[in-house]
Amino acid sequence: MTETQEAIVLVQKGEIAMEKKPVPEITNPHYVKLQIKKTGICGSDVHYYVEGSIGDFVVKEPMVLGHESSGLVVEVGSEVSRVRVGDRVAIEPGVPSRYSDETKAGRYNLCPHMQFAATPPIDGTLVKYYLAPEDFLVKLPDHVSYEEGALVEPLSVGVHANKLAGVAFNQRVAVFGAGPVGLLTGAVARAFGACEVVYIDVFEHKLSLSSSFGGTQFVNSAKIKGEDDLVHEIERVLGGARPDVVFDCTGAEICIRTGIKVCNAGGTYVQVGMGHDDVNFPIGAIGAKELKVLGCFRYAFGDYRDAVQLIARGDVNVKPLVTHRFKFEDAKAAYDFNIKHGSEVIKTIISGPE
Amino acid sequence: MTETQEAIVLVQKGEIAMEKKPVPEITNPHYVKLQIKKTGICGSDVHYYVEGSIGDFVVKEPMVLGHESSGLVVEVGSEVSRVRVGDRVAIEPGVPSRYSDETKAGRYNLCPHMQFAATPPIDGTLVKYYLAPEDFLVKLPDHVSYEEGALVEPLSVGVHANKLAGVAFNQRVAVFGAGPVGLLTGAVARAFGACEVVYIDVFEHKLSLSSSFGGTQFVNSAKIKGEDDLVHEIERVLGGARPDVVFDCTGAEICIRTGIKVCNAGGTYVQVGMGHDDVNFPIGAIGAKELKVLGCFRYAFGDYRDAVQLIARGDVNVKPLVTHRFKFEDAKAAYDFNIKHGSEVIKTIISGPE
Amino acid sequence: MTETQEAIVLVQKGEIAMEKKPVPEITNPHYVKLQIKKTGICGSDVHYYVEGSIGDFVVKEPMVLGHESSGLVVEVGSEVSRVRVGDRVAIEPGVPSRYSDETKAGRYNLCPHMQFAATPPIDGTLVKYYLAPEDFLVKLPDHVSYEEGALVEPLSVGVHANKLAGVAFNQRVAVFGAGPVGLLTGAVARAFGACEVVYIDVFEHKLSLSSSFGGTQFVNSAKIKGEDDLVHEIERVLGGARPDVVFDCTGAEICIRTGIKVCNAGGTYVQVGMGHDDVNFPIGAIGAKELKVLGCFRYAFGDYRDAVQLIARGDVNVKPLVTHRFKFEDAKAAYDFNIKHGSEVIKTIISGPE
Amino acid sequence: MTETQEAIVLVQKGEIAMEKKPVPEITNPHYVKLQIKKTGICGSDVHYYVEGSIGDFVVKEPMVLGHESSGLVVEVGSEVSRVRVGDRVAIEPGVPSRYSDETKAGRYNLCPHMQFAATPPIDGTLVKYYLAPEDFLVKLPDHVSYEEGALVEPLSVGVHANKLAGVAFNQRVAVFGAGPVGLLTGAVARAFGACEVVYIDVFEHKLSLSSSFGGTQFVNSAKIKGEDDLVHEIERVLGGARPDVVFDCTGAEICIRTGIKVCNAGGTYVQVGMGHDDVNFPIGAIGAKELKVLGCFRYAFGDYRDAVQLIARGDVNVKPLVTHRFKFEDAKAAYDFNIKHGSEVIKTIISGPE
Repeated sequence: MTETQEAIVLVQKGEIAMEKKPVPEITNPHYVKLQIKKTGICGSDVHYYVEGSIGDFVVKEPMVLGHESSGLVVEVGSEVSRVRVGDRVAIEPGVPSRYSDETKAGRYNLCPHMQFAATPPIDGTLVKYYLAPEDFLVKLPDHVSYEEGALVEPLSVGVHANKLAGVAFNQRVAVFGAGPVGLLTGAVARAFGACEVVYIDVFEHKLSLSSSFGGTQFVNSAKIKGEDDLVHEIERVLGGARPDVVFDCTGAEICIRTGIKVCNAGGTYVQVGMGHDDVNFPIGAIGAKELKVLGCFRYAFGDYRDAVQLIARGDVNVKPLVTHRFKFEDAKAAYDFNIKHGSEVIKTIISGPE
Repeated sequence: MTETQEAIVLVQKGEIAMEKKPVPEITNPHYVKLQIKKTGICGSDVHYYVEGSIGDFVVKEPMVLGHESSGLVVEVGSEVSRVRVGDRVAIEPGVPSRYSDETKAGRYNLCPHMQFAATPPIDGTLVKYYLAPEDFLVKLPDHVSYEEGALVEPLSVGVHANKLAGVAFNQRVAVFGAGPVGLLTGAVARAFGACEVVYIDVFEHKLSLSSSFGGTQFVNSAKIKGEDDLVHEIERVLGGARPDVVFDCTGAEICIRTGIKVCNAGGTYVQVGMGHDDVNFPIGAIGAKELKVLGCFRYAFGDYRDAVQLIARGDVNVKPLVTHRFKFEDAKAAYDFNIKHGSEVIKTIISGPE
Repeated sequence: MTETQEAIVLVQKGEIAMEKKPVPEITNPHYVKLQIKKTGICGSDVHYYVEGSIGDFVVKEPMVLGHESSGLVVEVGSEVSRVRVGDRVAIEPGVPSRYSDETKAGRYNLCPHMQFAATPPIDGTLVKYYLAPEDFLVKLPDHVSYEEGALVEPLSVGVHANKLAGVAFNQRVAVFGAGPVGLLTGAVARAFGACEVVYIDVFEHKLSLSSSFGGTQFVNSAKIKGEDDLVHEIERVLGGARPDVVFDCTGAEICIRTGIKVCNAGGTYVQVGMGHDDVNFPIGAIGAKELKVLGCFRYAFGDYRDAVQLIARGDVNVKPLVTHRFKFEDAKAAYDFNIKHGSEVIKTIISGPE
Repeated sequence: MTETQEAIVLVQKGEIAMEKKPVPEITNPHYVKLQIKKTGICGSDVHYYVEGSIGDFVVKEPMVLGHESSGLVVEVGSEVSRVRVGDRVAIEPGVPSRYSDETKAGRYNLCPHMQFAATPPIDGTLVKYYLAPEDFLVKLPDHVSYEEGALVEPLSVGVHANKLAGVAFNQRVAVFGAGPVGLLTGAVARAFGACEVVYIDVFEHKLSLSSSFGGTQFVNSAKIKGEDDLVHEIERVLGGARPDVVFDCTGAEICIRTGIKVCNAGGTYVQVGMGHDDVNFPIGAIGAKELKVLGCFRYAFGDYRDAVQLIARGDVNVKPLVTHRFKFEDAKAAYDFNIKHGSEVIKTIISGPE
């Protein structure tokens, strides 16, 4: 008889329930059974809950939620060599095909056969026991908590964005949007050597947090009208210089336009945030300045490992992100709270189940 | 008493005249005096003639036209070592500051102190004698004509675009716009190893020319409605595949949108053509596919040299581009012809003066 | 009862025999059963035969020989989507672990768990039926023969070396050693855009072949004494220039020393050939010229695919390499012939078994 | 009548004298007159003093010594825009031709027309007033001393070596040789994100200094016999791992051999130090591990600027390097001291002249 466990299930758009699911068993000798310890709530989870879809991904069947998780290794397959029972790990939630070109090219985030936790129809991590391949786990040193381990997921987005941009020593960086991904992207930029990181946001409480995430200057764009004035204000706080690298972590048209316009000639702009599919875009500005405009999707080979190391070495302190905590049994309440109090929440963590 | 020579001058918007100008003398020991032999007419010349400005560059004073030229070395400064009197050369028309960071970084096209022939207020090359620094000249082998030498300028744009994109062996390429720059960009792509080059244009006579410029497939977009149908048609002619690299050489919104949408995941899109400053842009598509969208401005270190070599080796045959020829004395007529018969002209060459 | 087939087995150092082996059956759903059609003899096979080992790889148990093979797909696993029964394919002989970092980074040639055909203790391809994963097969177009398909293996070595070196349009290249790998490396360099390829070898009959493999200049080093004279002779045939990229395909100290010395400042030297573990090396020359000296091992992601395309497009004609042909039943004779007539053989192909 | 100033002149091999030289006047409008404040003594100065030559560079005429200097801007040419009178600056001592390809490609360290201070026959900086072009000066922030400004020169060597190697976050690095260049190279590696930097040297007092320069592990190679034991010891202190990047800052054969052997598969080895022209080199090891072995020569575009920033931000503390100080008048004594007490000196600074 199959053992069962509780799971936090998005039954359909607007409906979350705790349901019984079978405990999975290891069949692939390179897989590991994990006990989930901490799970962060991501904007995408909330979006599926409220809207039932993101782009082409539509919730058609009930789906277990959760993909920002850390856990404990409780069982290993017969050929596992990278982790051992008792290891505490961050869990990379997307597993690509082993046979695709994208995977072998190190860009498995683009693999068309990707199976990503809590992206329909793949079940997520909000269960007690979860299976993952050994090479999509990264060991947490003893001094790194499970909560930090859960935050490796959004931190990896920041790592990936910075690697795409090639952020290196002595660069100036601008970050639009001081939510979790923006803050972590700016923090990674600083850790990768950026000498200045200017944050732009409309919320004062987010901007005030940003000095803990590498911020050296701040612009409250709520007080400024129009993209040209915003460009000038960013230049002003940078002492007349322009950023070499711009990360837009909002997806908002005004930020995208300002980001392109303020970026230095020969510079790089990375589209990290997602918003409307189409925007009124200053294409002329990318020609004359020969900008690089880069799309950015999740994370790829090496990003998770580097994110764990950033935390382990103390180069990025992710702890101030966590503003709210819930128990596994209260997961539905956690999601509802995120919907009601969106702008005040930075990051919510769900514990357990015990 | 200063010697004088005839020059083709854009007196003001809408007015071209042949005027007397002093023959320049070498003062910098690294400079060379050239006798201009052939000069191509560029869309930008025509644009200054008709509109009086391009972007921030406004014709405020009379300015000599012409920047796509080849010539004969007739005198060299005392420290010149790269060319000799009697050498036939292609002339790179933009000379940057020797003291700027951009120049020393190999990206002198972004130098803010660039002096570019026939970009206001810098005089162009439509004169008999012209000065240029030795390192902005490339020798033409005996079997390369002065007319081909003049075409090195637009070919260098294609070289630059291809280097930015990193076009290499075995890639699929799409080129929107089969005008001179589009055709040369596609031809360079093929020479750099692209296995397929699909051209998209609305004019059948331009598409029919494109098979001489590396084209392996062709789509007449005049017959197709809507970007989605155009995407499918491009995929269809590529046997179901998507291009790894897209060059937009039109600046038209429909081409930009289609180019982004048809580009393969992980691919590169280069904005070569210039049109409206703002377009309705499918920003969502660059995220999920992690595209590189690259601005492209003129050409930089090494491009002119490579363009001459492409012609010299026979890798690109630029000759079929030339559809019309005028004498120096008839330069005004040449410009007027280009305005009246725009879509039928591919490239016009002005000879001389004798 | 298990079906059996004949195999060409290296029983031990100095002893080759035809032996019965079981016909393998597909167990992994991404694997394919191939009927082997043509197999090239590689220097490494001969080396194992004569010496019983290469470096740390020692023949301790009988091992099937052969790793340069093409074949016909006769059966596919249940999840195979890249090839179909009836496809003719080139077979990449090394399959890495799917779980290693090197594999996911695109550098699976460095995977410590690599299983490479006919590298002890892994059995090779000189059998009738052979299993391989679908993503290590590349389809041959109809106009590419099985013999050409077998030659994809050494051609991939040349592709890999050229990619490591970043050979691109308008570079000068020197190739030391005009054996199969040297000739193919030079041919790829030309196809990747090198404007000049100078070959250096001691055998006139190999040099005379090199003009079919992209060679534009040739130096018979048998007639020259000392590395300095050889440096000058190479410069002389290049019209006073130095090569931007040097491939040593010999492993011989004189070639290594000359290659480093003749390489242009800022240039790249690739060690393709293997010889003695230690050589007297001009380390001082790499500093002042800031050379890149690159190790090169087999081939990695994308190389096999590009090699097939080079043949398919006619960019490299591999056929003139084949100087000798043997039947499967005569494989031992083929190896013995290679030992006796080494310098006169370029490449030997074994057909079948029928 | 020309004004004169005192200069420290290497009259010939073995003979240093203080001599009168003319005070130079600005003729190029992009040049700046500097009052020299602090100058470090480099091993190359000492080498010219003792041996009269380094490689092809031979002291044939008396030459002013000194090339590691900082100074005060006392006069600027008419077109200077980057610095002003009163600015305190680090002085990059090598000025290339503005017309060479290498300069425009950002690799001006390879420019064959380089004029490098105190490399024969170019006079050095040990004078009161010295001319330099504005773009080879980097302003020192107020909190950075002239002594630190003089140390920008060797720090730039470390910056250059790290950029060539592409040192980035989370890499393991080994540095052979804990002299000034080794210590600064390791310190830059740490600042660029290396997670571990292991130093190898034979002097305990140098190794003990290395923890101030990013060192995380140390190996005293005086106590270990043979390269294989040294390889194992380095692996041991790295917890069983191998370095991704190795910098040899010694030029000694044992270090070169050990460095190549200990470097991780796919890793990078940089030859920073100079010793014998030829060494017994483990060429076989670079093939199987596909190593990159990089020559490294001085520094190039951007390195000086980054070095100043490393000091300004406190990422590298160069001060502990300075073990000895002399006045300008005692410069000869300073050089003599360096010869006599070589292994105990790390860095000597000469002040003035007043």
